Amino acid sequence: MRKVAILGVGQTKISEHWGMSLKELAAEAIFAALEDAGRSSIDGLFIGNMLSGSLNKQENLGVLLPDWAGLTPVEGVKIETACSSGGSAIRTGLIAVASGELDSALVVGVEKMSDAKLLETTSALATAADADYETAHGLSFVALNALIMQRYLHEYNWNHADFAPFSVVAHQNGVRNPNARLQTKITEQEYQDSRMIAKPINLLDASPIGDGAAAVVLVAADEFQNNGNSNLVHILASAAATDTLSIHDRKDPLWLSASEISARRAYSQAGIQPEDIDLFELHDAFTIMSALSLEACGFAPRGQGPRMGQDGDIAPFGKLPISTFGGLKARGHPVGATGVYQIVELVKQLRGEAGKNQVDRAHIGMAQNIGGSGATAVTHILQGI
Amino acid sequence: MRKVAILGVGQTKISEHWGMSLKELAAEAIFAALEDAGRSSIDGLFIGNMLSGSLNKQENLGVLLPDWAGLTPVEGVKIETACSSGGSAIRTGLIAVASGELDSALVVGVEKMSDAKLLETTSALATAADADYETAHGLSFVALNALIMQRYLHEYNWNHADFAPFSVVAHQNGVRNPNARLQTKITEQEYQDSRMIAKPINLLDASPIGDGAAAVVLVAADEFQNNGNSNLVHILASAAATDTLSIHDRKDPLWLSASEISARRAYSQAGIQPEDIDLFELHDAFTIMSALSLEACGFAPRGQGPRMGQDGDIAPFGKLPISTFGGLKARGHPVGATGVYQIVELVKQLRGEAGKNQVDRAHIGMAQNIGGSGATAVTHILQGI
Repeated sequence: MRKVAILGVGQTKISEHWGMSLKELAAEAIFAALEDAGRSSIDGLFIGNMLSGSLNKQENLGVLLPDWAGLTPVEGVKIETACSSGGSAIRTGLIAVASGELDSALVVGVEKMSDAKLLETTSALATAADADYETAHGLSFVALNALIMQRYLHEYNWNHADFAPFSVVAHQNGVRNPNARLQTKITEQEYQDSRMIAKPINLLDASPIGDGAAAVVLVAADEFQNNGNSNLVHILASAAATDTLSIHDRKDPLWLSASEISARRAYSQAGIQPEDIDLFELHDAFTIMSALSLEACGFAPRGQGPRMGQDGDIAPFGKLPISTFGGLKARGHPVGATGVYQIVELVKQLRGEAGKNQVDRAHIGMAQNIGGSGATAVTHILQGI
Repeated sequence: MRKVAILGVGQTKISEHWGMSLKELAAEAIFAALEDAGRSSIDGLFIGNMLSGSLNKQENLGVLLPDWAGLTPVEGVKIETACSSGGSAIRTGLIAVASGELDSALVVGVEKMSDAKLLETTSALATAADADYETAHGLSFVALNALIMQRYLHEYNWNHADFAPFSVVAHQNGVRNPNARLQTKITEQEYQDSRMIAKPINLLDASPIGDGAAAVVLVAADEFQNNGNSNLVHILASAAATDTLSIHDRKDPLWLSASEISARRAYSQAGIQPEDIDLFELHDAFTIMSALSLEACGFAPRGQGPRMGQDGDIAPFGKLPISTFGGLKARGHPVGATGVYQIVELVKQLRGEAGKNQVDRAHIGMAQNIGGSGATAVTHILQGI
């Protein structure tokens, strides 16, 4: 298998893009990534998207996007694994290049959520959970996470206020990211006082949805490395794993085993340990997910995820900066695009092009994209030159 | 890149399965394929499906299916390219095994369409077309194909009755396939007299939807060949290409250029010519698609596809048997599953296990799965031992 590297990245601002359609958003990211890579052609398109069928009444993005971007007859496929669709699309594209079947691949994550009514969007997002055993009983996605968080507070003796740093740090980082949906600083007090959504999850525990697209260009590493390309970011590891779809089927609903398995495999592929990771783009759809991810990936002991917030470890100059461009919480969570945004942001950091969000000594970075309530996890480890 | 072969296949009957859910259908095919392959484990699941989000209110099949089939924590992804989702899932799974990233892959195509109201299903199927420029103007999928057929009759001076053999042969073959949705013989007269749907397409020009699942187990060819496994079917070629999504954007709406490009690439990979193909599972969603596919793939001159029906070439003992288990027309068209059914049927033929549907001297077979109105095409060429 050939080693694969990232040659170019692109993204749109995450917002309510009332004036742009799904294909226009995607094309903006595609063209930006191709330009960044210094290319005008590509061998295949891998599209991370969850909701185009239900919210945009448009499937067949594997044709719509190459067609709109002037790339036909290259092949295109849509990859869906709920909120980890972007990460799965990265993994699928990278395997295609690694195999030698394609010499280059463009992965674009795109989601256009604003056009639908909010109730439609909530229903569509609930299709990530188990339709028969969770959704049919009226459990929305926030409600499922609220049940997990409630249990976590009880089991490990934390207070809701202890989760504030996850939200505060993400918002701080979002302020300096011009592409972030929310560019507003918040205080711990504002976090605690914010409107209750599904107890104990309040508005500032939850990430906002949005419209956005992000793209990366994948190539065979050797070919471009030998050309002395200093923009190249290497993919050291890629791994995915699944857990039960329903939370009630898990032995321990407070442990993300898919997250653990995929992270372990990734460490082993890269030949490194958790302590070698310089920054971590995690899936902070809800603050409870940040805590659970840090534990499952081996950064914090079981039940001690919030401690890393308390101790300042997750801040930009802490031991393990997370959500460095605002994360899902402040950058925004256009579901099928999120996993590609994570990779784009890691690349910016590892190239030293993160501007005001730059993390010191960013050499090895990890991204983990989660679909469902921890049901599937895709982990990538990247290294700058 | 390693060579990849098919070690096992499985399928369900295509029907209105009122008593089975999507996951139950998929599991029946998965277990059948694993049993046929003599395996109980697999490294990854690739799921061809188009409509689970809109019709079954269930995304995240990449978790639902491994979970239900007891295969977690293996990774799973859903691949969507409209009606060619099954073919695209095969191609994605085969690249994963070819790359060495996975040692084995299970590809399952599944679609559960009966539970939704017919109008919902028609709307959902229309998401394969261009939402802005085709669907928004009220064009259903049948209507789009009717426009193509009307133009074809005019341009090449054929009568509607000349398309009868495509439907008659498919139904003849379906009679002998216990898994076919329609196991009824029809006459040319019945074809001509059948109810008009969208002029000139009548009921017997069109394929029926249905519920069904089909699965294949992919492995590295070398490993199993050396074990002297005589059930092994080799994948000689895999190629995909796209065209414009909208028909009005094409220079020639009567030419399937994605079909042509993907077939040409496949011939070149396999080092063969069209005349080396012993049987062809084509995408006969409508009789007009059969004619256009035969032309685009180099089996008939431009505008002369129907001649192959007239001359008996497409019959089981003709020059190029097609739709040998009934095709989309009689076996049925559970959209995202169809591409996998085509491969399962080819494998049966190439192993000499096709029973009453067995084609003589079946050594090299081709399958072509089409998404949208010729917008994307995935071609595979298989060879028996």
